[in-house]
Amino acid sequence: MLKEMMTNVRNTRPLVHNITNYVTVNDCANILLACGGSPIMADDADEVEEITAVCGGLNINIGTLNKRTIEAMLLAGKKANELGHPVVLDPVGAGASKLRTETALKLIENVRFAVIRGNMSEIKTLANGSGTTKGVDADVADSVSEENLAEAVAFAANVSKKLGTVIAITGAIDIVTDGEKSYCIRNGHPMMSSVTGTGCQLSALTAAYVTANPGNPLEAAAAAVCVMGLAGEIAYERLSEQDGNSSYRNYIIDAVYRMTPEQLEKGAKYEVR
Amino acid sequence: MLKEMMTNVRNTRPLVHNITNYVTVNDCANILLACGGSPIMADDADEVEEITAVCGGLNINIGTLNKRTIEAMLLAGKKANELGHPVVLDPVGAGASKLRTETALKLIENVRFAVIRGNMSEIKTLANGSGTTKGVDADVADSVSEENLAEAVAFAANVSKKLGTVIAITGAIDIVTDGEKSYCIRNGHPMMSSVTGTGCQLSALTAAYVTANPGNPLEAAAAAVCVMGLAGEIAYERLSEQDGNSSYRNYIIDAVYRMTPEQLEKGAKYEVR
Amino acid sequence: MLKEMMTNVRNTRPLVHNITNYVTVNDCANILLACGGSPIMADDADEVEEITAVCGGLNINIGTLNKRTIEAMLLAGKKANELGHPVVLDPVGAGASKLRTETALKLIENVRFAVIRGNMSEIKTLANGSGTTKGVDADVADSVSEENLAEAVAFAANVSKKLGTVIAITGAIDIVTDGEKSYCIRNGHPMMSSVTGTGCQLSALTAAYVTANPGNPLEAAAAAVCVMGLAGEIAYERLSEQDGNSSYRNYIIDAVYRMTPEQLEKGAKYEVR
Repeated sequence: MLKEMMTNVRNTRPLVHNITNYVTVNDCANILLACGGSPIMADDADEVEEITAVCGGLNINIGTLNKRTIEAMLLAGKKANELGHPVVLDPVGAGASKLRTETALKLIENVRFAVIRGNMSEIKTLANGSGTTKGVDADVADSVSEENLAEAVAFAANVSKKLGTVIAITGAIDIVTDGEKSYCIRNGHPMMSSVTGTGCQLSALTAAYVTANPGNPLEAAAAAVCVMGLAGEIAYERLSEQDGNSSYRNYIIDAVYRMTPEQLEKGAKYEVR
Repeated sequence: MLKEMMTNVRNTRPLVHNITNYVTVNDCANILLACGGSPIMADDADEVEEITAVCGGLNINIGTLNKRTIEAMLLAGKKANELGHPVVLDPVGAGASKLRTETALKLIENVRFAVIRGNMSEIKTLANGSGTTKGVDADVADSVSEENLAEAVAFAANVSKKLGTVIAITGAIDIVTDGEKSYCIRNGHPMMSSVTGTGCQLSALTAAYVTANPGNPLEAAAAAVCVMGLAGEIAYERLSEQDGNSSYRNYIIDAVYRMTPEQLEKGAKYEVR
Repeated sequence: MLKEMMTNVRNTRPLVHNITNYVTVNDCANILLACGGSPIMADDADEVEEITAVCGGLNINIGTLNKRTIEAMLLAGKKANELGHPVVLDPVGAGASKLRTETALKLIENVRFAVIRGNMSEIKTLANGSGTTKGVDADVADSVSEENLAEAVAFAANVSKKLGTVIAITGAIDIVTDGEKSYCIRNGHPMMSSVTGTGCQLSALTAAYVTANPGNPLEAAAAAVCVMGLAGEIAYERLSEQDGNSSYRNYIIDAVYRMTPEQLEKGAKYEVR
């Protein structure tokens, strides 16, 4: 399964339109190239519909949002929906400010997402949100562990059903679910949290995977999460005694670039629930 | 010739004002420092004229344009013209949206460029454009090869004459022409296309080279294209089995930093037509 | 002293809100993670007060300012003051345009800074500025050397007293002063100036240090300056014959990540005047 997902990305070279933050945008572009996709960045209302039209998928990340780019996100999202392009949402910092929470909720109301990827705290914010998402029980710990995994999976599946999208909650253990079937993924390394934007990079990667695997967003997202986690493990093995988080950043992207379908199949650690 | 161009950059340390996209801006700054120049980034109408005035050259890149920065591009471009500073245009994505195409054409109508650097598709868009550029035959393949090189050179020379600027079309074979004399450059490596922004970086580098070599934009631009391509070759040789596109990005900039005039003279592969 | 400053950062993991330029923002985020802090970037008036409220400190950098972000800087700065969070100012390019000079002065008038960090030319611009800063004698050389050090220290101390903030002037010799006590720091390497944004990175680092060491901005800022300079030395030692400024950038951040309190204590070269 994972092999096929990766091969489809490499063979079709999906072009992904990104409306994303200026902090990690360069790494998002390079990881898209690393995985076999191709990036375009454009964030102005005057052109996002045209840009999204020439792409295969769209990645919306609210990391450094403002009025101008929020408008562009909505326009691009609607256009992508109209054209049947998969759209990924990374609700960076939802819950940290009203603007982020409300923008994330507004996007969910107006755009049909193939995948929403965030940490537990961000996804809980969406679950607690107004409108259609109201009523989801978000009384689950912010950190997913073996102890609370069953509960976390149930929560994620519930959010997925309510929002009608694949939900990917990443952390120590990652959960990817479409409400019916849930992947629990144990790849990755704690040091990944000392590199800025590994979450943003994963969202970009996920957009490439769902674009190259139409009709299969669950497996595509699960594969992307495995790729990123495995890259974090491979990159960690490579660290010298002098290497720190900056070299680690480069090695993670390098590992995505070098990864073979066989390596992915062998290295992925997941169970289906 | 190439030696002299490089030595002039190293000796005069040209200060280059960049109005560029937020995706690859950090790499543009570092490659300017690597080549011996110095970068300033400023993109607001309230200050770009003053900033451009303290610099020696200007690099305009429309990669993530919006109304605010388009206004700044026009103001800075006109000011640079007034002061006799060379201006480089990188029409990123011209043809992909009306906004990009129209902005590129508007810039060309209002600003005198020393060099316009893009891929064949972007340059064809400018050639097909309205106004003064109309009428140039852009019926040439998007990918320059040995088979269609003569035709591509003729096209580039034609665009150069019509627009009154040096044209640099980069790809598998690069063409740099002032309409009379054309450099065909065979440096570079295909893996450069898996690093985001090598084109943007080359445009920044070109701005440093034309600034440090006044009155000689053709040779300066050709030298910059050779430097970038040769850096791509040197960096490729350095890749370990674990290195991917992220390390490659660093190695390319490193190679520009370490390159000597002798290395450039020896490694450059060009012919004049 | 230095050991304790660093240990406090590592133990408290200060969350720093950054309103900074898009050129070096990724490196600022990664150096904050490297030192043991945590970054949030948000630059819109609609959310900066809330974001700053969930952080421990604020870093304002005017590198690529515009009307929208200037407003956000003022709002966030005032909110941080209200909450007693330390605020660091990096007046990038003050003196190069009216907009930068006036914005820096406006920020100083409206926000109480814990530390202002810049090069001599930027700090002189602030000293020459209107209002409260008027009258400081800024007739001091732009480059601090052993010959003019006493004069430069006196100038820095004078600015510090007038502005009521710790002043950090970085260059060949760094000066950090609260007007009464001055640290002269001789760490660092000339090659650091060929990496874009080492100053911006230091300001971000300083924000983490002052946040983790409340009530002690002088020693915290001095420690941050020592960390950055020592990292530049360690990274320089690590360079291979093929490494240039791009690898050097990574190695500097890596060195901050790997640095131990003992290494810092042993490697720091400072005197108190």
